[in-house]
Amino acid sequence: MLHFDRPALQQLDKVKRLNLVNAITGIKPANLVGTVSPGGQTNLAIFSSVVHLGSNPALLGMFVRPTADVVRHTYENIRSTRYYTVNHVHEGLVQQAHYTAAKFGAGESEFAACGFTEEWLHDFTAPYVTESHIRIGLQLAEEIPIKANGTILLVGEIVHLYLPTESISEEGHVDLAVKNGVGISGLNTYYSLQKVGSLPYPTPGSLPQFEAK
Amino acid sequence: MLHFDRPALQQLDKVKRLNLVNAITGIKPANLVGTVSPGGQTNLAIFSSVVHLGSNPALLGMFVRPTADVVRHTYENIRSTRYYTVNHVHEGLVQQAHYTAAKFGAGESEFAACGFTEEWLHDFTAPYVTESHIRIGLQLAEEIPIKANGTILLVGEIVHLYLPTESISEEGHVDLAVKNGVGISGLNTYYSLQKVGSLPYPTPGSLPQFEAK
Repeated sequence: MLHFDRPALQQLDKVKRLNLVNAITGIKPANLVGTVSPGGQTNLAIFSSVVHLGSNPALLGMFVRPTADVVRHTYENIRSTRYYTVNHVHEGLVQQAHYTAAKFGAGESEFAACGFTEEWLHDFTAPYVTESHIRIGLQLAEEIPIKANGTILLVGEIVHLYLPTESISEEGHVDLAVKNGVGISGLNTYYSLQKVGSLPYPTPGSLPQFEAK
Repeated sequence: MLHFDRPALQQLDKVKRLNLVNAITGIKPANLVGTVSPGGQTNLAIFSSVVHLGSNPALLGMFVRPTADVVRHTYENIRSTRYYTVNHVHEGLVQQAHYTAAKFGAGESEFAACGFTEEWLHDFTAPYVTESHIRIGLQLAEEIPIKANGTILLVGEIVHLYLPTESISEEGHVDLAVKNGVGISGLNTYYSLQKVGSLPYPTPGSLPQFEAK
């Protein structure tokens, strides 16, 4: 077993520390965030920090570092227009999705550069990714600075949600494996998902048992 | 394709909305958070909201709803002692880890009730889970209220990190599959992880290609 204490982490080589600390929360979701500038320039960026905040109202969070080149456009567009989309990455999209993190030129949209199709649905102000299966349209609700390191938590309320009929059960459970959803470890490693099983809401007295599939 | 707009989400049956909205960010990490009360009573609770915030300083976030019964002890213990542990869940621990969400009696620790072993390392104020492979000791750095729904983001700095030697590469990449790490969808569905591959930092001009394993 390896042990790193706070000084050992601080003394690590920068790239090794980035890789390690980005990985140790466990598996992270892979989502493409679509936005548009007030001038009409679309932008698409991969994020592994989209997080559930609450279901009523339906709120999602995501973390941005305003000084980071690649994410700056996403952040500026969301602040300007107040709207953005979150689009799941599936196994067939991994390379293209990762490619959105390249530093493309000022007039270039990651949609075209990375081979994604813009889709404009229900008069929403931000573009969805046609190739994605689970797609969410969000309105910015709150912007929360994190003093400890200068990042920002963007809180968005779900305005639209699109998903394949076959992905969702009668009770609202979503099977991420049906459409080959993926997860991210660290900055650049992708994992496919295989369902182990579902467990009931547990009550004291007996270990929860996997439900029949 | 199914479409839910904001009113449709609001009108959904509560349990269906909970299941659906908890699932649509994609795969989530599975972690056990270990704490102790000032009186010495240990607590262990499963969380799917642990998130990477930054690597220097090494900061992790997690979201708590102070009014939720099961999580209240975790939150109160962290506020009192300022320390907590995050312990990865692997495939062999899924049922026991899920079981920590049951409402056990006031004097009962989830460690004993769910069959986990408390481990006290390097004079740290919170207990680790012996059965977990990747274990992190954190110090509370910041507590951030989210006005939109009354939840709280706890920001913690990593004080100790323990992980198996065989899980980490020379460059600091962590292979979550080596030790059978799992992810969560929604409230109660567990997924195992299979490595698809790693991609290099992308540069404009060519689609990133998977690195040789």
